[in-house]
Amino acid sequence: MSGSNLTHPLDPLTVDEVRKASQDLTIHLNIDSTSIRFKVIDLFEPVKDQVLDFLQRDGPTPDRCARVYYQVRNSAVLSKAKVNITTGAVEHTVELPDSQGPVDWVEYELVNKTCSEHPVVLAEVAKLKLPGGSRIVNDPWAYGTDDPKERRRLFQCYMYAAMDDHPEANHYSIPLPLAPIFDAHTMELVQLEKLPMGVGAELDAETQPWTPVKPVEYSADLLGEENLRKGLKPLQVIQPEGPSFTITGRKVQWQKWSFQLGWSLREGPVLHDVRYDDTPLFYRVSMSEMTVPYGDPRSPYHRKQAFDLGDSGFGLTSNSLTLGCDCLGLIAYFDGVRVASDGTPVVMPNVVCMHEIDDGVGWKHTNFRNGMSSVVRDRKLVIQCTSTVANYEYILAFVLDQAANLHIEVRATGILSTMPIRPGLKESPWGTVVAPGVLGVNHQHLFCVRVDPILDGNSKNTVVYDDAVPVPSDSVVNPSGCAFRVETTPIKKPGGYDLDLSKGRVYKIINPSRINNISGKPAGYKLQASPSQMIMMGKETFNHRRGLFASRPIWVTRYRDDELWAAGEFTNQSREDTGLAAYSERDENVENEDVVLWHSFGITHITRPEGKPLYFVT
Amino acid sequence: MSGSNLTHPLDPLTVDEVRKASQDLTIHLNIDSTSIRFKVIDLFEPVKDQVLDFLQRDGPTPDRCARVYYQVRNSAVLSKAKVNITTGAVEHTVELPDSQGPVDWVEYELVNKTCSEHPVVLAEVAKLKLPGGSRIVNDPWAYGTDDPKERRRLFQCYMYAAMDDHPEANHYSIPLPLAPIFDAHTMELVQLEKLPMGVGAELDAETQPWTPVKPVEYSADLLGEENLRKGLKPLQVIQPEGPSFTITGRKVQWQKWSFQLGWSLREGPVLHDVRYDDTPLFYRVSMSEMTVPYGDPRSPYHRKQAFDLGDSGFGLTSNSLTLGCDCLGLIAYFDGVRVASDGTPVVMPNVVCMHEIDDGVGWKHTNFRNGMSSVVRDRKLVIQCTSTVANYEYILAFVLDQAANLHIEVRATGILSTMPIRPGLKESPWGTVVAPGVLGVNHQHLFCVRVDPILDGNSKNTVVYDDAVPVPSDSVVNPSGCAFRVETTPIKKPGGYDLDLSKGRVYKIINPSRINNISGKPAGYKLQASPSQMIMMGKETFNHRRGLFASRPIWVTRYRDDELWAAGEFTNQSREDTGLAAYSERDENVENEDVVLWHSFGITHITRPEGKPLYFVT
Repeated sequence: MSGSNLTHPLDPLTVDEVRKASQDLTIHLNIDSTSIRFKVIDLFEPVKDQVLDFLQRDGPTPDRCARVYYQVRNSAVLSKAKVNITTGAVEHTVELPDSQGPVDWVEYELVNKTCSEHPVVLAEVAKLKLPGGSRIVNDPWAYGTDDPKERRRLFQCYMYAAMDDHPEANHYSIPLPLAPIFDAHTMELVQLEKLPMGVGAELDAETQPWTPVKPVEYSADLLGEENLRKGLKPLQVIQPEGPSFTITGRKVQWQKWSFQLGWSLREGPVLHDVRYDDTPLFYRVSMSEMTVPYGDPRSPYHRKQAFDLGDSGFGLTSNSLTLGCDCLGLIAYFDGVRVASDGTPVVMPNVVCMHEIDDGVGWKHTNFRNGMSSVVRDRKLVIQCTSTVANYEYILAFVLDQAANLHIEVRATGILSTMPIRPGLKESPWGTVVAPGVLGVNHQHLFCVRVDPILDGNSKNTVVYDDAVPVPSDSVVNPSGCAFRVETTPIKKPGGYDLDLSKGRVYKIINPSRINNISGKPAGYKLQASPSQMIMMGKETFNHRRGLFASRPIWVTRYRDDELWAAGEFTNQSREDTGLAAYSERDENVENEDVVLWHSFGITHITRPEGKPLYFVT
Repeated sequence: MSGSNLTHPLDPLTVDEVRKASQDLTIHLNIDSTSIRFKVIDLFEPVKDQVLDFLQRDGPTPDRCARVYYQVRNSAVLSKAKVNITTGAVEHTVELPDSQGPVDWVEYELVNKTCSEHPVVLAEVAKLKLPGGSRIVNDPWAYGTDDPKERRRLFQCYMYAAMDDHPEANHYSIPLPLAPIFDAHTMELVQLEKLPMGVGAELDAETQPWTPVKPVEYSADLLGEENLRKGLKPLQVIQPEGPSFTITGRKVQWQKWSFQLGWSLREGPVLHDVRYDDTPLFYRVSMSEMTVPYGDPRSPYHRKQAFDLGDSGFGLTSNSLTLGCDCLGLIAYFDGVRVASDGTPVVMPNVVCMHEIDDGVGWKHTNFRNGMSSVVRDRKLVIQCTSTVANYEYILAFVLDQAANLHIEVRATGILSTMPIRPGLKESPWGTVVAPGVLGVNHQHLFCVRVDPILDGNSKNTVVYDDAVPVPSDSVVNPSGCAFRVETTPIKKPGGYDLDLSKGRVYKIINPSRINNISGKPAGYKLQASPSQMIMMGKETFNHRRGLFASRPIWVTRYRDDELWAAGEFTNQSREDTGLAAYSERDENVENEDVVLWHSFGITHITRPEGKPLYFVT
């Protein structure tokens, strides 16, 4: 049966489903509910064959399943399970002694607290002789990797000082030269690492008293009236007849588009079953992974490389969005749900917002002979979330337009990651001094989107690339030398592929079995790639090996169920990319097959201060 | 004296000034006013030294001068003059027998009329046996170049048929196989060129009767109700307290920005004297040139290469913009003025519009510990024009934001250029069949912006580029291999330069004499380049030689007064680029000098039909 269920098989888990999954697993493990510690409960998507059977061929409704990451209490070992919520059965459980699961809020807060109360840490902090009224703040970071034998679950706490009680006092402007490392299982202080304060890797023999500098604030309350931007008059968006979208459950319809709005703790919003004018285009579109390696070889920065989806999750770290601040116009909000340590579901309100925007002229033509013109405004639908990971924010938006284009946009905002440097020093080979005593180490933000096409409802697609290349002059066909041709190359094997600006290379997904009856060419969907500098660290480095996805702008792989994440399932303290590195090595055909297209892009951030620093901007 | 005049020395000419310039020249030439035919009267900008003297040092107000292109009647030779409007003196006149001036509306309409009434043309059209009720339309095009000895002023008229009386009937969907060439001086038919109808260059021996195809319309009146997009509800922008910009004459102030809004028939809007927070940044910012070469070697397409600024002008071809269609919110409009053939000024109303937009979140940070967040919306100021050149539209926008960024955006819209192909043929090596009987030949749109910096009021700037490059591993400094450094290279000589994505190459303009007191680095302004495929035609082709600017993404030259246009002053039927080609060959220093930065970018348009073609979209 199909269609009569209230939910779509790819909808995210509901509050009740999360609760049931935790209960089912607890029963299955036959332990006390206080003996299991839950980290993640997300939808475990049914296999594609089942879903397509349901969607296209009136097949049975797939069972609802949950992916659970957990630990049996007092065990340092990560476990994962697949729980069939519909039947109550636990389909499998696995212990993963060689993997670290993502960060969860419970351990995060515990490490944070342990650090801020640890006598050894406090004794070292005392040497800084910080002024009265200051507060110490620490951000536990996933430790990263430089030793392939490391199996402890480690956090490195970067420490800062706030000089004001205000809840938005910008402690990032006062980074401290201490970065203690804790074992998250034993809560022991493993090492009180000191940070280099000079240009080289040398450490101060003894922690020195802090040299006072003025903090750099961002809150309007702390900036001082004279520093606030003036003169901006209100601009409001009104939609007197309501929005143009309709929402049924988690199905969204807008201007010939329809999709199911999925969500996971890891990815935030996911678009499922994307159709235009009733024609299926994409089975699944998502942000798959991202990584932020730093270019400073001095410990601990060589290990500093967050994988913000796999290490924690865009969904888990999403802000609750509010009208007027995050979005204008008529907004639809969608909640998320996470699991608390004890298995209780916790609603995360308004973690995704959706609204329309007007983006100027979409199309116009004027008949110059008579001045008559036709104009179409460029109305778009924005589906977005904002993830806060410590100092950074990432605003991820899927944007649909009226010409069947699907845009994916990431805005990196928030505050850049700051490191201490001795006040008075203005230069570092590894970054820029962005404020007195504050170094911003250069780094890269590299993202990977995953596009699983199903053009015209046909899973068998091909990725091709088109190059525009000049045709050599000859006296017969091309005497003027102006000719250029398009050369099309199908991708036949999985792997990483390159852009080529000199040939205007364009990648397309085509449906070889549907030929446009006007042009004689296969129907297709073009990727408008975002040409970017790829990860700079060499192949032999952990940075590169862990984030292989970030080494090539284009990847093509053959679809397998549950292969969703570019760097693999578990990125925290990983030693290698178990995602695209593995998928792309299989020697198999990807032409006219169920293929997946991945696109890596990003920015190299050479840090800089503001001219008149009011606040840090990444 | 300075400051007490009502106009700024770089303001565009007023209606009265245009009139006076034409009168002054007529008097000077000592001929009857009916014996001179005016093509262009634009501001002839005073030399930079004079302007800076006036702006920075209380120097005298520079005289107002006009650049005039004209012909003495019955002469085929182009003349240009510089007229000092303030004194009435004509500073110089020059005859230019080797150059063709831009297209003006008088000759355009005359060629158009001559073509549509020419008996030889009509006789050929009769062979098409077009249905009753159809109308022939022709677009005269600048002829282009394939013969360096050609000195006639030629237009090639591309011909189309409209099947409906409606003023927006889309004749571009019925291209005809005739393209007569006219001498614009004698109005003689030089050649009734036929267009190839097949795949190769062969022509039909005799013009064949037209094979009926259904026209593809774009006007809502002609599309049919069932084809109109439905379901879009209104979205309005209201600014209840008014706009945030102030306008004084042609001085605009908005959110710490100020600039003088210039305008010319050639360029459309130009930003002069651009300052942020009272700090001068740019002396002049403009779209400098563009070119659209086609990749089909068959005559006449090998010659098809518009230079839409030099050949006609963004200002000259600008639409009158209207509220609700072109812009939302509170709009300020600016008029332009052109000269009629007889020297009379003609107001062009509303050719530039200016308004604010909200572009989402500009900056956000949430303190995850307590959920408090600070948000800044991304308010922008848009200054734009829309130019219609026959079938194409170009929407040029300068966009300022609140973080001191100046964006330049071009939207290519309207209708792609269509060529006839025998109905039933679906393939061409040179393009795509976009509708039955309609070929869209592949082409490139390449633009060049000119940025004349004056950072901090200092004309002496340097263009540098920063590459981010990995540092080799070594056991001492970089054992992990993660390190990367920034290598800065100053540009010392004029010339064309390249981007390099693999190094994340970024070009900046720096003011070497102002060092940021926090970072120790020179103040600078970064160019966020738009990496594009450059012109494909080889160095030996007329395409490349005429549009050398389009062969490299970055150019740096030493400032000279009146060197404003990337391909040179006269592009119509040019044989070579007399702009950047010349400026960049001078063997001189450009480091810490009065430099100009040019950026070429664009799109390679591999044409395609719409899935369900409602209208052509470029």
